[in-house]
Amino acid sequence: MISLERVRVGIMKCGNIGTAPVLELLLDELADREDINVRTVTTGSKMVAEAVEDALPKMFEFNPDFLIFISPNPAVQGPARARQVFLEKKIPSIFISDSPGKRLKEEFEKSGFGYIIIMGDPLIGARKEFLDPTEMAIFNANIIKVLAITGVFKIIYQEIDRLIHGYKVGLNPQLPRLIIDTDEVREHSDFQNPYAKAKAMAAYELTKRIAEINVRACFMEKEREKYIPLVACAHEIAQVAARLAEEAREIEKYSDALVRRPHSKDGTPKVKDKLMLPPMSDEEILKKWLK
Amino acid sequence: MISLERVRVGIMKCGNIGTAPVLELLLDELADREDINVRTVTTGSKMVAEAVEDALPKMFEFNPDFLIFISPNPAVQGPARARQVFLEKKIPSIFISDSPGKRLKEEFEKSGFGYIIIMGDPLIGARKEFLDPTEMAIFNANIIKVLAITGVFKIIYQEIDRLIHGYKVGLNPQLPRLIIDTDEVREHSDFQNPYAKAKAMAAYELTKRIAEINVRACFMEKEREKYIPLVACAHEIAQVAARLAEEAREIEKYSDALVRRPHSKDGTPKVKDKLMLPPMSDEEILKKWLK
Amino acid sequence: MISLERVRVGIMKCGNIGTAPVLELLLDELADREDINVRTVTTGSKMVAEAVEDALPKMFEFNPDFLIFISPNPAVQGPARARQVFLEKKIPSIFISDSPGKRLKEEFEKSGFGYIIIMGDPLIGARKEFLDPTEMAIFNANIIKVLAITGVFKIIYQEIDRLIHGYKVGLNPQLPRLIIDTDEVREHSDFQNPYAKAKAMAAYELTKRIAEINVRACFMEKEREKYIPLVACAHEIAQVAARLAEEAREIEKYSDALVRRPHSKDGTPKVKDKLMLPPMSDEEILKKWLK
Amino acid sequence: MISLERVRVGIMKCGNIGTAPVLELLLDELADREDINVRTVTTGSKMVAEAVEDALPKMFEFNPDFLIFISPNPAVQGPARARQVFLEKKIPSIFISDSPGKRLKEEFEKSGFGYIIIMGDPLIGARKEFLDPTEMAIFNANIIKVLAITGVFKIIYQEIDRLIHGYKVGLNPQLPRLIIDTDEVREHSDFQNPYAKAKAMAAYELTKRIAEINVRACFMEKEREKYIPLVACAHEIAQVAARLAEEAREIEKYSDALVRRPHSKDGTPKVKDKLMLPPMSDEEILKKWLK
Amino acid sequence: MISLERVRVGIMKCGNIGTAPVLELLLDELADREDINVRTVTTGSKMVAEAVEDALPKMFEFNPDFLIFISPNPAVQGPARARQVFLEKKIPSIFISDSPGKRLKEEFEKSGFGYIIIMGDPLIGARKEFLDPTEMAIFNANIIKVLAITGVFKIIYQEIDRLIHGYKVGLNPQLPRLIIDTDEVREHSDFQNPYAKAKAMAAYELTKRIAEINVRACFMEKEREKYIPLVACAHEIAQVAARLAEEAREIEKYSDALVRRPHSKDGTPKVKDKLMLPPMSDEEILKKWLK
Amino acid sequence: MISLERVRVGIMKCGNIGTAPVLELLLDELADREDINVRTVTTGSKMVAEAVEDALPKMFEFNPDFLIFISPNPAVQGPARARQVFLEKKIPSIFISDSPGKRLKEEFEKSGFGYIIIMGDPLIGARKEFLDPTEMAIFNANIIKVLAITGVFKIIYQEIDRLIHGYKVGLNPQLPRLIIDTDEVREHSDFQNPYAKAKAMAAYELTKRIAEINVRACFMEKEREKYIPLVACAHEIAQVAARLAEEAREIEKYSDALVRRPHSKDGTPKVKDKLMLPPMSDEEILKKWLK
Repeated sequence: MISLERVRVGIMKCGNIGTAPVLELLLDELADREDINVRTVTTGSKMVAEAVEDALPKMFEFNPDFLIFISPNPAVQGPARARQVFLEKKIPSIFISDSPGKRLKEEFEKSGFGYIIIMGDPLIGARKEFLDPTEMAIFNANIIKVLAITGVFKIIYQEIDRLIHGYKVGLNPQLPRLIIDTDEVREHSDFQNPYAKAKAMAAYELTKRIAEINVRACFMEKEREKYIPLVACAHEIAQVAARLAEEAREIEKYSDALVRRPHSKDGTPKVKDKLMLPPMSDEEILKKWLK
Repeated sequence: MISLERVRVGIMKCGNIGTAPVLELLLDELADREDINVRTVTTGSKMVAEAVEDALPKMFEFNPDFLIFISPNPAVQGPARARQVFLEKKIPSIFISDSPGKRLKEEFEKSGFGYIIIMGDPLIGARKEFLDPTEMAIFNANIIKVLAITGVFKIIYQEIDRLIHGYKVGLNPQLPRLIIDTDEVREHSDFQNPYAKAKAMAAYELTKRIAEINVRACFMEKEREKYIPLVACAHEIAQVAARLAEEAREIEKYSDALVRRPHSKDGTPKVKDKLMLPPMSDEEILKKWLK
Repeated sequence: MISLERVRVGIMKCGNIGTAPVLELLLDELADREDINVRTVTTGSKMVAEAVEDALPKMFEFNPDFLIFISPNPAVQGPARARQVFLEKKIPSIFISDSPGKRLKEEFEKSGFGYIIIMGDPLIGARKEFLDPTEMAIFNANIIKVLAITGVFKIIYQEIDRLIHGYKVGLNPQLPRLIIDTDEVREHSDFQNPYAKAKAMAAYELTKRIAEINVRACFMEKEREKYIPLVACAHEIAQVAARLAEEAREIEKYSDALVRRPHSKDGTPKVKDKLMLPPMSDEEILKKWLK
Repeated sequence: MISLERVRVGIMKCGNIGTAPVLELLLDELADREDINVRTVTTGSKMVAEAVEDALPKMFEFNPDFLIFISPNPAVQGPARARQVFLEKKIPSIFISDSPGKRLKEEFEKSGFGYIIIMGDPLIGARKEFLDPTEMAIFNANIIKVLAITGVFKIIYQEIDRLIHGYKVGLNPQLPRLIIDTDEVREHSDFQNPYAKAKAMAAYELTKRIAEINVRACFMEKEREKYIPLVACAHEIAQVAARLAEEAREIEKYSDALVRRPHSKDGTPKVKDKLMLPPMSDEEILKKWLK
Repeated sequence: MISLERVRVGIMKCGNIGTAPVLELLLDELADREDINVRTVTTGSKMVAEAVEDALPKMFEFNPDFLIFISPNPAVQGPARARQVFLEKKIPSIFISDSPGKRLKEEFEKSGFGYIIIMGDPLIGARKEFLDPTEMAIFNANIIKVLAITGVFKIIYQEIDRLIHGYKVGLNPQLPRLIIDTDEVREHSDFQNPYAKAKAMAAYELTKRIAEINVRACFMEKEREKYIPLVACAHEIAQVAARLAEEAREIEKYSDALVRRPHSKDGTPKVKDKLMLPPMSDEEILKKWLK
Repeated sequence: MISLERVRVGIMKCGNIGTAPVLELLLDELADREDINVRTVTTGSKMVAEAVEDALPKMFEFNPDFLIFISPNPAVQGPARARQVFLEKKIPSIFISDSPGKRLKEEFEKSGFGYIIIMGDPLIGARKEFLDPTEMAIFNANIIKVLAITGVFKIIYQEIDRLIHGYKVGLNPQLPRLIIDTDEVREHSDFQNPYAKAKAMAAYELTKRIAEINVRACFMEKEREKYIPLVACAHEIAQVAARLAEEAREIEKYSDALVRRPHSKDGTPKVKDKLMLPPMSDEEILKKWLK
């Protein structure tokens, strides 16, 4: 039975960034959480306004407590249309996007939207000579690995969990205003070994570089001889970044110090490190949420 | 503008398997395909009947030409409810699932459903002492990598593309009836080097093993001292499988023989190998589809 | 001078499994043990009854205190003949074998034989298009590495040492009845880091998978196009398993926690971890042996 | 049925070198060869004269066409006693040993013995603070891998096969007189890529270095602080050498050029490279043998 | 005997960039070239004007045909002083530097200096909590590896060789005006496999990123908690870049296609690929030089 | 301003060994040391007496407190000429060289020269079919990495720092008499994990082997078919040695125990391990210097 008190989280995916494919899964990794209902609607890879317009009503029928709109570059048509609708509907909304979203920071704030800009969630190497479904999936796997291990996903789902918690206890929680750059990885990731952290930061720096290279390869270079090597080069960096992140995580395993933060059934955050021990309620986070 | 002639593909995700997060992206990796409209609705990680029941109407409003329902074990409540509804609605439907789906093969066929059972898309190590959102995302990244590189994703999206093509040309295409085991990887993957293929098959065998171990760890072992090492062991195999798959792909790069199969704007399949050359229309596949 | 009080261990090798090539070396790795005499007789790779019949008398002339018969599948001719002879001779005998031996468990027990069944000591990929002496040696090297690092060899030689110790102190020690599966690796291996243990368990799971694949490739598939990729795939897994085991061992080195268990000259077990420190007498094991 | 015409190969193992554990397996990797009978007798890790003396009669009862005696340093007691007995028995005999055997070259030749001296089959790091059965097995696995991949094993078994062939066709074949150093690897290994060969040579050079270091660590250094790091260092080199050899073999796989040389049932040598093709009779070798 | 006709190359090193330690060695890797005399003077790690002033006269006494001044950021005191002196002395001079040199492009051209700006020769992580002589040497080793493998060194020494050749044949060769960015790697490196080239380009992109990170860490961040992780992160990227470059080179080895360009004794350029074949005179380059 | 009290260090490089390219940088890695002036003069790759003779006067004009002459094999013409001149000038001088320098030990001592012989700084594979500038630079990068990580560079710069310190405090410090073999690595490297130390020693053993192989390949083998594989093999070992050294260093990072020894501005030695903590004055070393 779906209880009435569950917080209802609506997620609209429009186009794709590395964070998008697993976003709702981050909130309920064990599929046993009893305090939320999640509904996601996607328009496939497309970002046109019509698709967004067509899909949004279904989302509102779900009657979400708050909405997350995740897309690449939110300056384009589809996401722009979404912002208009959200403003009209007056529903608390958060825009999650890659680095081009940074340019909309002021607009977001003026309109009262929350935002999470992931500087290291890079544009894919979208050139027809290079990108096929297989290459696309591998690239996303590499980026997911980096974003997970560096703690970027943790920063994101903790923000959303904070919101959920706020709605549950009847607060009017502040929407997130977050730009996730390497500094945030340094400050908020859970690495206990400083070299592991440095490697994770390095992996994140690499994904930022991928973005720069792919922007050039996809939008600026016109000749095949130039853009093919560039997108190939960018995806090689993605592979290397994933390996480097993996290396960082291995370091934590090597001293049995890997921090894990599972959700409990009632949604309260838990935390642990030693592998063979059970997770404990994470009072520190809870306190922070109630401030 | 969204043209009327586009084939409308509806995707319902219920719970998660490794194929699910990127499924719709596989159909339109360059986000420029003009022959399809895709709409996905997800119920988050949950698989309860109520959530499915609540979400399905939105899907039908989209008026899809055919429906894909992707979930783990389709024998449980949610997917079962979906099958009832689909039968009533008489919409062409395909069930994509992991290995437990194999037991429903006959039921699928009797009811006229298509199915794609992915034997190597394994259960995750869902134990609270081990699985947190980070571990979950990494696991999915590893499985995505294996399924992409071994050609499993290719087999899947070519089946869907075949359907789309059928609807476009006004045929009444046969729904897929496919169990993807190691033999299918051997037969249908694009590796040109036989050792690369052997490594890919090995990676797929490993993901099948993960499934077996995690079933035991999640459903059979009751003591923490037993199930924690097992889920940890299963996820280590996932990491190794991803690396092995990567190695297979590198072999093809080393002789510039990596096959790529991008979609063209009008949805016709293209194919190429030499990196610096453009893709060509894949007549072989097209012919097969028209048989 | 060979003293009269030495325990005489007779080993008969018939055909080959991964444990066989180093079996007697495990008992006396420093070649300075003064409490045992070991004699091994081998029939080469062959397992026919005639060879066993011909070789056994030499073994009895050695007058062993107990006999170890190691072979693949002990249900076939050669080992079966050996069981008949051993029963007649009434000499305490232990059968060491790979997983098919599990089916003879009851027969072993009824006849009073000891047995050690190594579930993860897999059949080799014995297909003429694939297996040559070089490939065979590499495969065995990989399997030896896995069985050594996972602690399977330790379980085996401790059982034999227990017997030897029993005969030395005039007890009538119970013959081993042991099936070494992943649970035994979990319980009895010496890893101090839980992730190292998980990786070791994973390596052992992989060798078990190899067995399944090679059985299919060697006995079930008839077409070259099918069985060659399968045996190649199985041997790739062996390589990966060896690497994974190695990784597990490295973890223990990284915190200078690698457990070592050398034999002392008089055969008593010793144990240590810190590399630069000397081994100490292992009282724990000794006590267990005397129970 | 064991036919009368089979060539009877007797192998005596005394102590252990890296080649010993798999020696008889190299002659019949598929266990289906119908032209030979092999019998091996081992004295465990020990090399004392008494053990040899005790074991040899069983070997002669087998009535071998020729004898192989494999041991470390053949200058010590046990092998020396064996030479006396062999001279008396006038049986064609070959001594296989590690590098110290080189000093007996003249003695071997004067006495009419064949010999194969394997310069890169190194002494193990036999120090009680370091070597336990697990470390011993791993070391042997690494050395086996190097000797297999570099083609050293091939050189050895081809020499023995040449002998067998000689006896079969009624010739009086010349016993081998072979010192296997890096030059032999360069000349006789089957690598088709010159960098693969260079890496294999490098791996072999490393095993030669191990020998030098372990001789110093085992026989010259008296203080624990000095010899422990040395044996540990030597075994690290063994691990690196095995990896390097593996890398060499991978290169050949990457261009599907790996040479395989399985035995046929009647013992004639076969050869192939492309993985998916069957092996062919190796006329070149056969011709060489008949010269 | 040092002949009069040799071209005299003077090199002044002031401070250090990754190219500097091996610069003169690139011109005469076999130490047998008979057409040049090289003299290098260095002021250690320091870049102050006094040191430059003190060292330059010794350089002029050598009477070089042309001068190379290599340093980091040529805008600072020492290199600035050198430019003044060179202008007075009217000796053909080339400034080699890292990316900050790009800002002096116009000044260089106005003054008639040649220049080679290496965009991917990054600032070291010069923070006292991090950089010691060992870390410094390792960083330089990594950068040297990347610059060598990507072909950046080749571009540099071919430019200098072109000059030398020009002076030898009595031409008045044009001084180089070169900014070496990723495009130059794409265009001028010798990779025959396009994925190898993409990996090399990726490695070079990484070294460019290191520069950006270290500039921030060394000059902008003031708190230890911030700058230490940044320099550590930058050096991790250097390690990864070196490995990636190595991987690119291995690809060329795997198909025996690695291009080598040794100098001949008389300085004419040679070229080869197959490892076992001798180098040939490189007519293509020679022709280009005479244009 | 360059103060009068700075110790003046003159360095003459003649030909190249792995230590040479970074030698002066080791003394002042942060380029902020205020207690020394360093001047280096190099004759390129050449070692002829004329070049040395021509370059030395410039060195003496610098008026160094002491001189370091670094070259391969110091028995040849150029270094020999330098020794004559140094004896005449009566300037305190140290010869740094590779292993052939060991034969001059007595001559060095008789003449009052200091010496540092680096047994593991190997001859390069100087064969025209193999060595080009790129290969040369890579080889040096690998050797630099090994010498840095194993602590060989530390031993060297601490000796020079001891001298500098002696001159600063007005002592007449004893010139170093040092042969750096594997024992010195064992005793003086900073590894806290014993396996890390063993791996570092192994890396150093490998570089010593390279020297032996390259001497044979460069001076003894005459046929291309023989010497090309040998130099290629030697350089493969260099790559492996660098990786192994890197592995050793990673171990120290994994437990945040990596020792760093930066110079302070006034030249006093500092030391630290935990990455995030500042370095402290190294009293232990200082005391040793004053003995």
